[in-house]
Formats: sequence, C-alpha cells, structure tokens
Amino acid sequence: MKNQHPPVLQAASLAERFERGDLFAAQCPSREVLKHVTSRWGVLVLVALLAGTHRFSDLRRKVNGISEKMLAQTLQWLESDGFVQRIAFPVMPPHVEYTLTPLGLDIAGKVEALTDWIEVNILQISAAQQSSLSQA
Amino acid sequence: MKNQHPPVLQAASLAERFERGDLFAAQCPSREVLKHVTSRWGVLVLVALLAGTHRFSDLRRKVNGISEKMLAQTLQWLESDGFVQRIAFPVMPPHVEYTLTPLGLDIAGKVEALTDWIEVNILQISAAQQSSLSQA
Repeated sequence: MKNQHPPVLQAASLAERFERGDLFAAQCPSREVLKHVTSRWGVLVLVALLAGTHRFSDLRRKVNGISEKMLAQTLQWLESDGFVQRIAFPVMPPHVEYTLTPLGLDIAGKVEALTDWIEVNILQISAAQQSSLSQA
Repeated sequence: MKNQHPPVLQAASLAERFERGDLFAAQCPSREVLKHVTSRWGVLVLVALLAGTHRFSDLRRKVNGISEKMLAQTLQWLESDGFVQRIAFPVMPPHVEYTLTPLGLDIAGKVEALTDWIEVNILQISAAQQSSLSQA
C-alpha cells in the first residue's frame, strides 16, 4: 500500500496550476487570451460591440484605420475565445452579424473601463509626456 | 469686422477634438498610450508594480519570460507616459528603482481588473475555445 501511495508531494499538473490562470507564468493559457483582448484592434472591436450587434462593414467603419484582413482576424480570435458570436443569415447577398456573448459582455466592460480612463485622462498624460521630453 | 470674424463654423483643432481622447479616431494620441499599457509586457509590468516599488532585476524575475531589452523598453514607455517613476540612487554599484506614480496607480488598477477577470475565468474561456475547435 505504501508503494502505491507514496507520501511524496506530487507536482501540481498544468491543469491544476491553471485552474485560476496566472498571467505571470509564461506558459499559462491566459497569456494568449490577454493577447487577443488587448491587441491593438481587439480592444476597439470589443468596445465597439458593447453598443450592440454590428455587421462587418459597420465595425470596419467604426474602428477607424482597421484593415479588412485585421478585422476578420480579430473577430476570429474573439469568436474562438467565446467572446463574440458570429451569426450568418442564409440570404443573398451574404449577411453576417457579430454580437458579444455574455462572457464577451463581461470582458468588454473591463476593457472599456480602461479605455474610458485613458480618454478622460489623455490631457494629463500628454502633459506628462511633454515634461518627460523636455527633461530628456 | 464681419471679415475678421466670418460667421462660418471653424473645424475643431486637434487639441480641441482630443480634450477627451477618442480611441476610435486613428490620429488620437490616446491610441499610443493604449498601445503602451496593453502591450504584452506593459500589462504585466503595471500589475507587478501594483505590489510596490521594484528594482529592475526583481521585475525581470516576476514577469516570467520578459527579456532585459523588452523590460527596459516597456519601463521607458511607461515612464514617458507619466505612469512609472524611475529613481536612480547615486551609489556603486548602480541601484535603480521603479514605482507607480499616482496616475500609474490609477491605470494599473484598471489593467488589473481586466487581468484578474481573465485569470478567474480562464477555465470557462478554455472550454469555449475547445468547443470552437471541435466545431471547426
């Protein structure tokens, strides 16, 4: 019996270690999710979708500067993480809509709190940047 | 007089337009700030510094996987945005510490709300990823 249940500490499996993610660990899958939602365009697409369901072309107009390719890539990431639902209507010409899932609504709210803060404080940040430049 | 003050609407200057930043506008300076604080390493350095003042080597140990070069670059961005203060002690060997400014404390709090959410929900997100894979 003793051999079957050796009284040594078992190293926690990856799954056990990451039941709660640990972004400070290089191998934690949470790093990939963080990358998607904080990517240059991921942030803006999530915040745009907080306003409601959008068609691809509406999103592209709203997120000024994004290319068609990057919008498609970003939506694919967010869809595969379970944050965005893609709804394709079987009509001609094709009509596809994107909407936040409950999980996506949650995370987009956190992202928006961050972007709102930046927008509100941009003058103070710009002042800090100027003073940093003049000291350099 | 009429010629001096023509009754036409003046386009808002960039500064006026961006008194409150607008992340959806490609030229708004807030996009650059967003890039710094949501960069792969910017996020982790900000959250690490929430625990208090750190030396360079302490930060490097804590943020698993970051290179010396990227840590230096990230700290420089965050310093120039007014989020991080760099304190160099005039001793030998050199001793440099990094700490959050009040502005940095604020934004790091928003970033941590996002990272905490991801860490807490990573199992649910992984499940969504799996089901997305099996449908593909």
